Order: sequence, then C-alpha cells, then structure tokens
Amino acid sequence: MSNSNDIDRLIEIMARLPGLGPRSARRAVLTMIRKRALLLGPLAETMQTVARTARECLTCGNIGTSETCAICRDERRATGELCVVEDVSDLWAMERAGVFKGRYHVIGGTLSALDGIGPEELSLPRLKDRIEAEGITEVILALNATVEGLTTAHYIADMLEDSVRLSSLAQGVPIGGELDYLDEGTIGAALRARKPL
Amino acid sequence: MSNSNDIDRLIEIMARLPGLGPRSARRAVLTMIRKRALLLGPLAETMQTVARTARECLTCGNIGTSETCAICRDERRATGELCVVEDVSDLWAMERAGVFKGRYHVIGGTLSALDGIGPEELSLPRLKDRIEAEGITEVILALNATVEGLTTAHYIADMLEDSVRLSSLAQGVPIGGELDYLDEGTIGAALRARKPL
Ligand SMILES: [Zn+2]
Ligand SMILES: [Zn+2]
Repeated sequence: MSNSNDIDRLIEIMARLPGLGPRSARRAVLTMIRKRALLLGPLAETMQTVARTARECLTCGNIGTSETCAICRDERRATGELCVVEDVSDLWAMERAGVFKGRYHVIGGTLSALDGIGPEELSLPRLKDRIEAEGITEVILALNATVEGLTTAHYIADMLEDSVRLSSLAQGVPIGGELDYLDEGTIGAALRARKPL
Repeated sequence: MSNSNDIDRLIEIMARLPGLGPRSARRAVLTMIRKRALLLGPLAETMQTVARTARECLTCGNIGTSETCAICRDERRATGELCVVEDVSDLWAMERAGVFKGRYHVIGGTLSALDGIGPEELSLPRLKDRIEAEGITEVILALNATVEGLTTAHYIADMLEDSVRLSSLAQGVPIGGELDYLDEGTIGAALRARKPL
C-alpha cells in the first residue's frame, strides 16, 4: 500500500484497534510519521514501557503498573466501601467523576446465559470473599443500565443478602446507557441519589 | 485517570491522533494492554522501526523508508507519465486502485491565498523541474474535486502550458469529494475517463 513493509505493518496493526479502521489507521500513521518527535517517538517509547509494566491489580482488577494498584494502595481511601463495576473503563469513568472515595471491584463483564458467562466467569465469588476479608459494610453497584447489568445487579443482591448495605447508581443513568459515555456531573448525581436495593 | 503515569501518558498521546479522542484513546489503550502480545508489543516495536526509518522520498514526496521510494525505484514504472496528487494519502489511494503505472508527484496541499499557500509552499517549481529533467510527456492531475483542488489544477495547467499532455481525473469523482474516500473502482473509472485540459 505505502510500498514499505514496516509502514504497511504499522497501519495494519493500528487498524485492529477499536474505533479505527484501515482508513483512519492510514491517516493516523501518516500524522505520526510527520510528527515523529511529538507522536511516533513518544508513542513507541511509552508503549514499550506499558507493555513491560502494565498489569491487572490482584485485588480489584484495575489495570495499573503494580501488583496492587494505586487505588488499593491509597490509605486515604474508605476501606469499608466497595464500588462494583463491569469493566476497567467504568472504574476510570468513576475516578474521573471524583465523587467516590472507597475502593473498587471490577467484575469483568455481566452475566449472560446466552454467552455462557456465569458467576465463575466474572469475579463474583471473589467479591464475596473480599467483602468478608476486608470487612466491607457498603457495596455500591455501578453497573451499566442495560438488561445484562440489571440481571447481574439482582444476582449480586441475592448473593450478598443482608450482609452489607447495598445500593446502585440511580438518578441520571439513562436506560440502556453505558457508564463510560456519561459526563462527570451525571455520574456524580447518580452516586449521590443512589437507592437501596 | 488510570492512576498510572505511563498508562495516562499513553492515552494522552493516542488521543492526539486524528480520528481518536480521549474516550477512544482510553478504549484503544485498554484493548492494547489486554492483547499485549498481539497489539501492544508489535505496535511498540514497529513504531520504533518506523520512527527510525520513515522518510520522504526526495524525488516524489511519497513516504517510505529510503531516500528514493519503492515507486520511484521501480524500473517497470512508465517513466514518461507523472500523476500529481495533493497528499501522500492520495498517492496511496491511487496505488490501491492499481490502475496507474507511472510515477507520482506529491505537491503537499493546494494553493490558498487565505492561508498564504502559494506555488513555492507547494512543490510546484520542483514539478516543473522534474518534467524537464525526466522527460515527462504526460501529466495526470489527481487532485481532490474541491474548489482549492480546481484552482490548483488551473494554476498547474497555466504553468505547464503545452509542454506536456495534461489531463485530470474526471468521471466518477464527485463534486466536493476527497480522493482518499473513494473506492478503487471509482478511481479506476475516473482515470480511464480522464479528459484533456
Ligand atoms: Zn486495585
Ligand atoms: Zn518517490
């Protein structure tokens, strides 16, 4: 395509990223090459570092650069509160909102009979263990407002029974909406107006 | 945001690429980290290579990995024909169409009084030099079908007078359309139906 194997290969790999196709990958690569000092060099270097250091937090499932992520290590975080999210991107969205001061638990998806995703495929047994081991008294469900998210929330409510105060994000999360698309204000409002399950 | 400086920096640089914003950059980085062996590692490595080797062809302006690009080096290419394009991405679009067997001249934009882009800012004097030095007998203008593209085409026609056979892509290029968006078939049809200026 560009008649250079390395450039073609770079375009081909970039095109596999979510949100990019062949055309936007070509544009991105041309821009990177033109702004080599500003984009291509720093990107290559940072990717190499991240490829070497990125890892999943063994406690909460967040992605960071150590065995225990910065949030789990942060002693100013309220230890009795746990916010349950589907995905790391949702955890980051909560953090951008800056309204939750406890810790997180990334379950890694939603229950789905169709896709064969049961409690064991998500980290739900581990959630139960953590609640006991860490003396958690309040769990906030920040799952996406989708059918699968609601099903999963009900399952968690049944699993935890009355062992903790349980609530879920409420006001402000539109039906069918995904957390990662919401602005900080909406997430903040939803957290403050959370309703007990 | 992710509470890791390197990951945040990677997201921040990715978000500067055309077609990506902060949100798609976050998604892309999470995907890269999850598919480290398939995406992050190979990307970092290929970027490093491209950052070291990519350069503009001194003859035509194409981006490749040598002083003279593979197209300019290719002796099977018709030496008397030159296709003039605005941008490297347009050259690549022509090559994907696979219908032009000559060589290229990337002028690097279009004339624009408003933006202070005159013939010297584009490689138009150099186009004239090449035509003499390389004994070019046919020039095909494959500029975008925009007002600026048409203005530039007229300027080139005046500059070259009757020194070469001059034509421009015609049928199939929609008014206001940009070359890089067209499918191969449309580009092929436009080349075959090119009309003399
Ligand atoms: Zn953690
Ligand atoms: Zn060349």
